[in-house]
Amino acid sequence: MREISSTDNRMIKLCQQLAHRKYRDKLGLYLIEGENLVDEAISEGADIETVLVREGYDGLPSCLEEKAFWIKDGLFTRLAQTDTSQGILAIVRKREFSQATWMEKGALGNFVVLDRLQDPGNIGTIIRTADAAGYSLVVAMKGTADVYSPKVVRAAAGSLFRVPVVLINDNEELISFIKAAGGKLVATCFDTDRYYFEEDLTENVALIIGNEGNGISPDLIENADVKVKIPMTGAIESLNAAVAAAILMYEKVRASGSWENVTKKPMA
Amino acid sequence: MREISSTDNRMIKLCQQLAHRKYRDKLGLYLIEGENLVDEAISEGADIETVLVREGYDGLPSCLEEKAFWIKDGLFTRLAQTDTSQGILAIVRKREFSQATWMEKGALGNFVVLDRLQDPGNIGTIIRTADAAGYSLVVAMKGTADVYSPKVVRAAAGSLFRVPVVLINDNEELISFIKAAGGKLVATCFDTDRYYFEEDLTENVALIIGNEGNGISPDLIENADVKVKIPMTGAIESLNAAVAAAILMYEKVRASGSWENVTKKPMA
Repeated sequence: MREISSTDNRMIKLCQQLAHRKYRDKLGLYLIEGENLVDEAISEGADIETVLVREGYDGLPSCLEEKAFWIKDGLFTRLAQTDTSQGILAIVRKREFSQATWMEKGALGNFVVLDRLQDPGNIGTIIRTADAAGYSLVVAMKGTADVYSPKVVRAAAGSLFRVPVVLINDNEELISFIKAAGGKLVATCFDTDRYYFEEDLTENVALIIGNEGNGISPDLIENADVKVKIPMTGAIESLNAAVAAAILMYEKVRASGSWENVTKKPMA
Repeated sequence: MREISSTDNRMIKLCQQLAHRKYRDKLGLYLIEGENLVDEAISEGADIETVLVREGYDGLPSCLEEKAFWIKDGLFTRLAQTDTSQGILAIVRKREFSQATWMEKGALGNFVVLDRLQDPGNIGTIIRTADAAGYSLVVAMKGTADVYSPKVVRAAAGSLFRVPVVLINDNEELISFIKAAGGKLVATCFDTDRYYFEEDLTENVALIIGNEGNGISPDLIENADVKVKIPMTGAIESLNAAVAAAILMYEKVRASGSWENVTKKPMA
């Protein structure tokens, strides 16, 4: 296996570049870290380009040996995203899902739309929950933080290898996408009398989750086919975005009976 | 109003100490930052001891003037917890809820138990969701990260001023607390055939949320009165702890009809 000991190495430079969205966008690559994510990447057939392991790391899957580089301890520590790194990093190629290729697939099922979300933890958690709830697609509107940033990748806990993510540039484009897919745009908002469990959220749902500070774009609320609210006690003003998304997505699971058909795994 | 320009000032030192759990525990104080949290602290009647504002800050509530200190810009930046501070920090006294005083209140309602949770974002989000769902109490088991750390306080978004938090030292003590309160211990686990929406989770629920990596303590699962699972599709192994908590707590809201009685606020 090849060994890297210099900060000048091309692979080290690439790794450092991939900490920035600019390079992830340009190169179509992103970083994953840790044994669990690397194992999931393998089992989900993700396109792993390169693996970087800390010198002395024990447990490199044999299928990755040809793609691996050993890195000197001090140098690896500088690349690692977490303080308690297990000693394995991989460079993965993004799966590209254009809107066009996605539309060709026909029925979309339910999908969730991230309307300019900013918090990487929220974005990753929503992708993970969408995966668990059997949602088939995540749409990231322009202005949403990068779904391939290290923090999103960590919070998504492997679901990024399974749930396709499509980027859409403007609201008009989103609305025609939803119409063409036969979906109904579902938004949470203030001016409605309907609670989320009073509407049918089981099928063809395009669930919009709004920006943490400003909520959903006014013109998406205006174009919503279904407006719902989540009841909250007294003084509280809002729920965390990932929590609201989970409550709404799991209403589909609960109400549709489709949970009878999914693998019956409990929560860990 | 008093002015502070020296790093040696007693108040500056106190602020720096409160970044650490040791001092928060010892002094019974914690920090909050930003206009929204300070406003909520006032309206919820939290015990604000001191306010620290950046020189030139405009908008200090008049009720806080006597408790305020002006801080030189450079010095304030070193105290601020976020990069984009609004220029206001406050030192707040914890509300103390001992188990004994809590028990005297009689009926507990539903409560959520944090079983050694580590992620401050998860802890804060669970406290916020408990508040929204009308849960009346949060129990933090020994080994849970401090509920008064800056990240928890931020994620709880004001709910820490409303939802009481009780610390409990061991599982035996927790179990007798639940029994004495007439509650049923609800745990998610693998070895059950029951989905969460097949059980009555509306009343007297003590919902245990387990550690992010290791789940719920085996002896709490063993002592559970109700064991449920959350259905998940195919390959996914678990949900984020705050998401699982939200799905289970909102099942109470949905199923109990108690949402008719709460202030009908939608999600922002």
